Amino acid sequence: MKILIIGSAGMVGRKLTAALLKDGIAGRKPDSLVLSDVVETAIPADAPKDTKSIVADLSAPGAAEALVAKRPHLIFHLAAIVSGEAEADFEKGYRVNFDGTHALFEAIRRENQKSAGAPYKPKLVFTSSIAVFGEPFPDAIPDDFFHTPLSSYGTQKAMAELLLSDYSRRGFFDGIGIRLPTICVRPGAPNKAASGFFSGILREPLAGKEAKLPVSEETRHWFASPRAAVKFLLHAAALDTAKLGARRNLSMPGISATVGEEIAALRRAAGDKAVALIKREADPAVAKLVAGWPRNFDTVRATKLGFEAEKTFDEIIAAHLEDELGGRPV
Amino acid sequence: MKILIIGSAGMVGRKLTAALLKDGIAGRKPDSLVLSDVVETAIPADAPKDTKSIVADLSAPGAAEALVAKRPHLIFHLAAIVSGEAEADFEKGYRVNFDGTHALFEAIRRENQKSAGAPYKPKLVFTSSIAVFGEPFPDAIPDDFFHTPLSSYGTQKAMAELLLSDYSRRGFFDGIGIRLPTICVRPGAPNKAASGFFSGILREPLAGKEAKLPVSEETRHWFASPRAAVKFLLHAAALDTAKLGARRNLSMPGISATVGEEIAALRRAAGDKAVALIKREADPAVAKLVAGWPRNFDTVRATKLGFEAEKTFDEIIAAHLEDELGGRPV
Repeated sequence: MKILIIGSAGMVGRKLTAALLKDGIAGRKPDSLVLSDVVETAIPADAPKDTKSIVADLSAPGAAEALVAKRPHLIFHLAAIVSGEAEADFEKGYRVNFDGTHALFEAIRRENQKSAGAPYKPKLVFTSSIAVFGEPFPDAIPDDFFHTPLSSYGTQKAMAELLLSDYSRRGFFDGIGIRLPTICVRPGAPNKAASGFFSGILREPLAGKEAKLPVSEETRHWFASPRAAVKFLLHAAALDTAKLGARRNLSMPGISATVGEEIAALRRAAGDKAVALIKREADPAVAKLVAGWPRNFDTVRATKLGFEAEKTFDEIIAAHLEDELGGRPV
Repeated sequence: MKILIIGSAGMVGRKLTAALLKDGIAGRKPDSLVLSDVVETAIPADAPKDTKSIVADLSAPGAAEALVAKRPHLIFHLAAIVSGEAEADFEKGYRVNFDGTHALFEAIRRENQKSAGAPYKPKLVFTSSIAVFGEPFPDAIPDDFFHTPLSSYGTQKAMAELLLSDYSRRGFFDGIGIRLPTICVRPGAPNKAASGFFSGILREPLAGKEAKLPVSEETRHWFASPRAAVKFLLHAAALDTAKLGARRNLSMPGISATVGEEIAALRRAAGDKAVALIKREADPAVAKLVAGWPRNFDTVRATKLGFEAEKTFDEIIAAHLEDELGGRPV
């Protein structure tokens, strides 16, 4: 199986690559792997010999065609600029998040339409986001709730979801869109996402460092771990999409939790000393933004289809400690 | 007030122009009018002296910029190729219905961003469609039901709705999207829309001609008259969009009726002789397509905002007789 990962240098891309190499998809490991991003992707030691890192911007002319020309059987499209940047730079957001995705889909369609050789119809797994939803919400967002994004990022993801469904319906590829919850605990340095503090208030104290909390403890949001995110993508890649019908985009399961509940779990994992490292610095602009975000979902379809996430924040913290900190707080 | 109508040569465009010239918007008649379409638009006798007909394809380079350069205060964007054609010609559908709309929105944004002169922020009324929804449905589709189009046309309209919301949220223009029910009775010759028979079985018998019925009498669908459609657009143009919040696309009120109920209304208006002109010719392909279409809506928001449609098919037929046939069947 030839696999292409677009957005391979990002946090989810690297973890997905590692999991693919370790466990494969339904037991099948990749025979060939192409890792593509706007920066060089480090090739893991256990990757197949001919694994390539290709530096490319999907929205640049010819870039998508070049990636698709090798006819990968499975494509993970994870590449995007984050919400904060897409909001700050309107043109860049549409170029990367929408035009880039459209260019990829078009490159696959053209390859599909070529009469020469066997018909080409790859499986395509796309990472969407809960940012396709905007307030006001019901208590738990059902699977049939409408898309009312309150950001350009969410708009771009929602448009890409629609394209994915239509291109799949027309038979150009076999697509599935995965709406990731906010990933927590996100390892590494903070990125430009306005949601960064949700991870920061756990990651930094667990590493013995201070973290800022810009919102109140009552603030509720929707979470899954990086480990769960990778499991979603691998499960999506193995899933028989006939089970989806025409509705190819799914909200993933997760945990609805308040900042206070995050802090309580931190206390259970690392004690009062860790909690004391959280510094309250109210930021009304961030609080206002976060107030428009989803807080809870009723993910009936994804759960029936076998997608699974953590059930408690204690599990999320345990996964972070295991994957990033050798099992326990610094 | 300077008004631009894109798609002015179509059925709704011509009726909208006539209503604008007769009644204006909230009593204000246009000082200046530009009528644009891919074909020449006949300029009505009562139009302002400097009214122009501009033949242009929105998706052609520079076309949208040229239309927007005159800074119309109000833009009606009605231009689209119909569902049947967008399904038959994938590339043309995306080019006209999506790229053309995107080009228009971008032209307005660039004009808005120009520092020279007064800020430019027109009101924009866009005609969307109930084709943004696809089965399975609840008994009546609520305002917060998700977009699951089962056609490329519906996908293009849903993507345009998302763009309209985001461009409005960013302040580039003041947009409102109007999801029209299936227009019935559509006057004139049949077009390529697969929904054409819903009008044909009334229009043709009322004019003393035969009509084909490809589906069963139990087939239910969602309707409004051309007169109601024009009223929706004029009401949208006059509406204070602050009342919409971030949710700028609205399903319009209409009538949920079966083909059998259409025929019963035809019998009341024109007798058994007219009904006898309907020839049953089952077409399973059309029946399958129609089965995926919306049948009923619960348009709470639009109704609260003052949008109004007919309540019975008798009213729809009476409007057709008055507007097209001098008041009574041929």
